[in-house]
Amino acid sequence: MQLKEIAKHINGDLVGDSIDVKGIDTLEDAKEGSLSFLLESSFLPKGLISKASAFISFGDLEKISKPYIKVKDPRKAMAEVILLYNPPQDVIHSISPQASVSRQASISEPVTIGAFSSIGDHTCIGEHTHIYPQVTIGNNCTIGKHCILYPNTVLYDGIEIGDHVIINAGCVIGADGFGYYQENSQWIKIPHVGHVVIKDWVELGANTCIDRGCLGNTFIGEGTKIDNVTQVGHNCHIGNHSALAAFVGLSGSTTLGDHVSVGGQAGFSGHLEVGSHTTIAAKSGVTKSVPSKRVFSGFPAQDHKEELKYQARLKRLAKKTD
Amino acid sequence: MQLKEIAKHINGDLVGDSIDVKGIDTLEDAKEGSLSFLLESSFLPKGLISKASAFISFGDLEKISKPYIKVKDPRKAMAEVILLYNPPQDVIHSISPQASVSRQASISEPVTIGAFSSIGDHTCIGEHTHIYPQVTIGNNCTIGKHCILYPNTVLYDGIEIGDHVIINAGCVIGADGFGYYQENSQWIKIPHVGHVVIKDWVELGANTCIDRGCLGNTFIGEGTKIDNVTQVGHNCHIGNHSALAAFVGLSGSTTLGDHVSVGGQAGFSGHLEVGSHTTIAAKSGVTKSVPSKRVFSGFPAQDHKEELKYQARLKRLAKKTD
Amino acid sequence: MQLKEIAKHINGDLVGDSIDVKGIDTLEDAKEGSLSFLLESSFLPKGLISKASAFISFGDLEKISKPYIKVKDPRKAMAEVILLYNPPQDVIHSISPQASVSRQASISEPVTIGAFSSIGDHTCIGEHTHIYPQVTIGNNCTIGKHCILYPNTVLYDGIEIGDHVIINAGCVIGADGFGYYQENSQWIKIPHVGHVVIKDWVELGANTCIDRGCLGNTFIGEGTKIDNVTQVGHNCHIGNHSALAAFVGLSGSTTLGDHVSVGGQAGFSGHLEVGSHTTIAAKSGVTKSVPSKRVFSGFPAQDHKEELKYQARLKRLAKKTD
Repeated sequence: MQLKEIAKHINGDLVGDSIDVKGIDTLEDAKEGSLSFLLESSFLPKGLISKASAFISFGDLEKISKPYIKVKDPRKAMAEVILLYNPPQDVIHSISPQASVSRQASISEPVTIGAFSSIGDHTCIGEHTHIYPQVTIGNNCTIGKHCILYPNTVLYDGIEIGDHVIINAGCVIGADGFGYYQENSQWIKIPHVGHVVIKDWVELGANTCIDRGCLGNTFIGEGTKIDNVTQVGHNCHIGNHSALAAFVGLSGSTTLGDHVSVGGQAGFSGHLEVGSHTTIAAKSGVTKSVPSKRVFSGFPAQDHKEELKYQARLKRLAKKTD
Repeated sequence: MQLKEIAKHINGDLVGDSIDVKGIDTLEDAKEGSLSFLLESSFLPKGLISKASAFISFGDLEKISKPYIKVKDPRKAMAEVILLYNPPQDVIHSISPQASVSRQASISEPVTIGAFSSIGDHTCIGEHTHIYPQVTIGNNCTIGKHCILYPNTVLYDGIEIGDHVIINAGCVIGADGFGYYQENSQWIKIPHVGHVVIKDWVELGANTCIDRGCLGNTFIGEGTKIDNVTQVGHNCHIGNHSALAAFVGLSGSTTLGDHVSVGGQAGFSGHLEVGSHTTIAAKSGVTKSVPSKRVFSGFPAQDHKEELKYQARLKRLAKKTD
Repeated sequence: MQLKEIAKHINGDLVGDSIDVKGIDTLEDAKEGSLSFLLESSFLPKGLISKASAFISFGDLEKISKPYIKVKDPRKAMAEVILLYNPPQDVIHSISPQASVSRQASISEPVTIGAFSSIGDHTCIGEHTHIYPQVTIGNNCTIGKHCILYPNTVLYDGIEIGDHVIINAGCVIGADGFGYYQENSQWIKIPHVGHVVIKDWVELGANTCIDRGCLGNTFIGEGTKIDNVTQVGHNCHIGNHSALAAFVGLSGSTTLGDHVSVGGQAGFSGHLEVGSHTTIAAKSGVTKSVPSKRVFSGFPAQDHKEELKYQARLKRLAKKTD
């Protein structure tokens, strides 16, 4: 593909001559003929020594005398160029003879179902959905259109999944919440009969768990992205377009608003609300409700600026004791 | 079902007139005819605006003029009412023709074994146990009666499971512990040939891992409940009726007593003992043995009251520097 | 087996008379005739009351009048003695008729493939490799010789695994990284088309996740050992002979050198480098690059001695306020 065609495709400005692009690569792996990516100014040192023949760049390149495409959003441009070189494949209608599909399930066309996948009674699978091998879907589930369920996904009974949802391998959706009462100093199980509702365009990382509601549902709003190995407790409600990094733990009945961002290994006490557009820093411990459009950090979590001031003061105090 | 029948079933006091209960719901989802639950006083604001027609309540309701059942333990009552509306189903004897069951395995009746589950040699499965699809059970395992093993449970060889045990999807029981010695600056594996013993009434959350012992066993005592994505290292010994929340990590040879509670994301250094009836707060890092009937928090964990005092003093000191 | 034979096998010094060793056990479980292990001086109190008839010991035993074998490295000796009593079994060539192996896959001999395992197109499996039931291997993967893949291992397409690699149950190798760009306040997926390369002698714990690179590869160097439930983000590069404990989280593009040790529940911000032979303590939060041959702890992580001093000063300051 010619560099000028790529520039046109991603709506960028070509600076320098067009070349024949032989492939796309990281700055480190690039060979002659490679197109590579300068996503921000911190990438420049690697760009200077890269063997790439051309770049997609966040801005003007003064010290690199190779052709480049200047774009407004280099991450968006990278995504578009990767798709150009790796176009998504259409789902072919194919149900493995080694799958176990209930006669009472309703499977649209086209749908791919891999070997050793198991689909329960009264479960509906929407068109263009790709179910990899070894997926287990219980009874009375609804999976929308254009979804991808990677191997070892487990959906317990009664789970509702929207369209364009991606569930990575090993996710468990709908296990019982961690709810007990005590009698004679023993834990007695509270049955969990609610469901899980996951809306359109959600992506769940590998080995992530979303527990079912006790009564009522656990809910993940549209466009929310959840990283690997994250735990969402029973009856949590996560709004739209939020993002949770790995190892985040939400205790039961935590509510996150829309556009909330949560850093890795943060934890939430449960029965609290996080306002929309709020960011919770990595490793925070959120113990009470926090308002919207703010940043919180620390344990117990407080306003991030207050936390930074507090930590700085402690450092100064400790220094004085020398 | 009539409200007065429910009151009788849960041994509660009906206040107001009996009604025809059409279903049970959360306070938020309740419709006319719904019975809902006021588990503690903090639920009252939601109760006031709930459309539920009746409640099960922790105490007297002054501002809500609807019938209610007053009970001593509303969580217990809720569990009993959920079971009333969702009676557990008997296990039907059914071994999927798509399962792989060793001829040398011993399967009681009735037992359900789902599609694509694999049962190894000399493994025994007790009656009324339900094995979902895609479960892998190795050789020489013993599973008791009335157990539930959800999809993708993996039991390595030689695992012993008691009666009434629930293992949620994706649990891995019996992987080798993380034990190595060093030679020429390289890590060399120490083989793990011990087993895992899990006693009656244990519940394990989704994607939780219990490593096998190196020599000797890893042990989970009766009635202990472990949340999702928890890691129990080799040769750990957890007593009876303890409770571990999500993301708790126990390094090898940690010993927890009976009735120990551990909050989410807490970690334990290994080769230490936690006394019975002790609580370890969320996110704690326990680096040495701690006695019984106490509460510990912080990292390194110390007596919880001391930790609170310490944090309060630091706050005051920091404030003074303003 | 005679104690003197064992002494010879592990190149240790027998002190006292040889006995007939009936088995190997932990100090607690040992019976008459058992050989047990005193790995370090802290084991002596348990050794004194152990019923073992002989020991392998780190040093001279003054208060225990039983025969023992003195060795330089008791952990190495323990590993060798365990192997003596539990010799590893040869892999028998056996492909389950209930497995799904692509005709375009290349399977060496001998290889074991268990029931319900699925091997994709153009995937190569080296000789003496044991694939347990329920393993899913995608297309275009390469698995070396003498590997063990436990049940529910998932390899996405294009994964490269060296020789002598052990992957415990529930691992997910090659899921997409957590990479998105924002448009109209929504997260749009950046496709991940890189691969994962895992070199010889690596061991991965149960339910661990290694994401694929976006462009370029995620890399795990030779001899590196990773514990259960660990998350390695896209494009991370881990050197040789490193060790990561459970719940460690590496954000995308983290680089760890050779011989790095990371304690449990530590986290890394991504796009940073950790020098070789450096240790990161448990629960640390590493927010910027750190040099080699050092120890770091705390959040944000700093030099461990500085962190200890800092914590000690805070304790002293807090005490003064009494």
